[in-house]
Amino acid sequence: MDSEVLALAKNLIGRESVTPNDAGCQQLMADYLRNCGFDIESMVFHDTTNMWARRNKQGPLFCFAGHTDVVPSGKLEHWHTPPFEPTVIDGMLYGRGAADMKGSLAAMLVATKRFVAKHPEHKGSIAFLITSDEEGPFINGTVKVVETLEARNEKIDWCLVGEPSSTDKVGDIIKNGRRGSLTGSLTVHGIQGHVAYPHLAKNPIHLAAPALAELAHTRWDEGNQYFPPTSFQVANIAAGTGAPNVVPGELEVQFNFRFCTESHAHVLKVRTQEILDRHNLEYDLNWILNGEPFLTGEGKLLTATQDAILAVTGYPTDPQTSGGTSDGRFIAPTGAQVVELGPCNATIHKVNECVAVDDLDTLADIYEQLLENLLC
Amino acid sequence: MDSEVLALAKNLIGRESVTPNDAGCQQLMADYLRNCGFDIESMVFHDTTNMWARRNKQGPLFCFAGHTDVVPSGKLEHWHTPPFEPTVIDGMLYGRGAADMKGSLAAMLVATKRFVAKHPEHKGSIAFLITSDEEGPFINGTVKVVETLEARNEKIDWCLVGEPSSTDKVGDIIKNGRRGSLTGSLTVHGIQGHVAYPHLAKNPIHLAAPALAELAHTRWDEGNQYFPPTSFQVANIAAGTGAPNVVPGELEVQFNFRFCTESHAHVLKVRTQEILDRHNLEYDLNWILNGEPFLTGEGKLLTATQDAILAVTGYPTDPQTSGGTSDGRFIAPTGAQVVELGPCNATIHKVNECVAVDDLDTLADIYEQLLENLLC
Ligand SMILES: [Zn+2]
Ligand SMILES: [Zn+2]
Repeated sequence: MDSEVLALAKNLIGRESVTPNDAGCQQLMADYLRNCGFDIESMVFHDTTNMWARRNKQGPLFCFAGHTDVVPSGKLEHWHTPPFEPTVIDGMLYGRGAADMKGSLAAMLVATKRFVAKHPEHKGSIAFLITSDEEGPFINGTVKVVETLEARNEKIDWCLVGEPSSTDKVGDIIKNGRRGSLTGSLTVHGIQGHVAYPHLAKNPIHLAAPALAELAHTRWDEGNQYFPPTSFQVANIAAGTGAPNVVPGELEVQFNFRFCTESHAHVLKVRTQEILDRHNLEYDLNWILNGEPFLTGEGKLLTATQDAILAVTGYPTDPQTSGGTSDGRFIAPTGAQVVELGPCNATIHKVNECVAVDDLDTLADIYEQLLENLLC
Repeated sequence: MDSEVLALAKNLIGRESVTPNDAGCQQLMADYLRNCGFDIESMVFHDTTNMWARRNKQGPLFCFAGHTDVVPSGKLEHWHTPPFEPTVIDGMLYGRGAADMKGSLAAMLVATKRFVAKHPEHKGSIAFLITSDEEGPFINGTVKVVETLEARNEKIDWCLVGEPSSTDKVGDIIKNGRRGSLTGSLTVHGIQGHVAYPHLAKNPIHLAAPALAELAHTRWDEGNQYFPPTSFQVANIAAGTGAPNVVPGELEVQFNFRFCTESHAHVLKVRTQEILDRHNLEYDLNWILNGEPFLTGEGKLLTATQDAILAVTGYPTDPQTSGGTSDGRFIAPTGAQVVELGPCNATIHKVNECVAVDDLDTLADIYEQLLENLLC
């Protein structure tokens, strides 16, 4: 018979909740948590369904954060099982969202139920902050819930985000911070013309090439003990009409910084513009700050999480700050300590996404132990 | 009443001969020339209709060269007269091909008729080399006719191409040469990845930027008395998936040399590859030699053309080698002297293409005078 964690994970995977659809996942979670003594608030912003569930009113407040939405399945013919029909083969649970992050949600639910059954009078409060747009534009999800909480002065002390942080075995890696992400959209202006009359044209590719070379070559900072150095990458570049005899009038470049706590976004902007100006470019430059970097250093949450992993698995864990962004970036600025801990991430966003059934049970044990460490 | 030149130009413009369609233009020309004592050969290669018409068998051979095809009209609503309904307004003849180059064809026909009427026993031979793919891929047009002529050892001594060479008044500028055109299609290989893991990716934009800067900055030669220095222009550049968080795996660059007689195509290729190699790029590079440069220096044709313009208009003419390519590049390598002389080019390939009616009559007079200068 399926464990309760597996049964819940399967139930969630069976709901086709491609961003921003929740497909009833949060209703399932709400019903479960209500039985554990939680008050449920549904927070719908435009196309996005969010849930804030809380047990108790006193501090400190520990929060599980996560998302019910999943990325699209991709080509069905590349899956060997239907992506929204959870299937266990050789101890692996297959399905879209198995690892990112419906397995984590199932483990959170079961860990909470067991913990409150054992410790009905536990210290502080437990909450769930769940969104359905983590994989999408993240406009109407966690960021709006956090705004709502801040407006009424409801403060998260410790937050565990269930993102799949592990690499080889569950809990081997947790994330205690993330780099910031800053995207620049640059248009370099030249003068369109015919290649036969270059003196009448001004080629924006020629003008921009040395500036791009300098940007690519610049060392923005040296990183620090928690973060690698800030990196700059051009993601997209385009100019030209397609014809071989036309000098284009404009060059479009999109680039992205992943930046550590040693560099501030506004300094990166200023330094970028200094380089463009030094090369005498005429340009428009629009910035999107996708997220500030955050870091949860030594403290109660990090220690409690490492201790819980050690107690359950017997091995130590490695806090890292590498990788992409997560909704932790919206929660950390409120002053909360934030760590991310979830299953192995090898298959996330890919076809045949899967998670080890045993890992889900282990994860539930770790989450329960974490509640013990923090709230007993 | 319309002059014969204007009537012929209108008749040709009324035939919608967008490349590679001839739309009966050459049939009209053939009928006209047969009446002037020409032998007509139609040379059809795949989708392209060509005509070789010749009067007499002896040398020297003077040839009018030109094309019946036109570029597409573009958006009809931007024209104030229908592009394929020739219309005279305020002394200007409007219609697609009016200046490039159905007006020239009409002037050639009338000049020839008048000349052979006056000089039925003229020296040498007169020919017309007419194609319907000058504006297109130029694969099955002039180049194939020239191959056919060379195979049977039929040799052009003097060639006048009717391309619209003039700037302010008809005959103010003639072309006595053209730069070569060499196009390179470059693919720079990197390794695709996520911007959050730059150490696992290799960004081809970053790798290529300094090489492109160097190529754009290189002085390839100093030009000479006839030609400006060789120029290099990047026409198209593209990389990226569109997403801001993906390091692209490949960069596509298309560039074009317009090169003078001081640089050989193969030397430009070698020097380009040296620069790419010095920057340690992994790349594929494909070349298309669109045309070698050619030059018709001092000689009988250039003098006769300048004299004809002076005699008819009273002003001197300026031989230049600037501008785009023409089918002259295929004729000059046979050893022919080649000049280009046609009406003003301000509106060619644009909406509301037009030519002054008076200029067409002047052009017919100049062409007739040129025949006098060469074949009497
Ligand atoms: Zn996720
Ligand atoms: Zn033309």
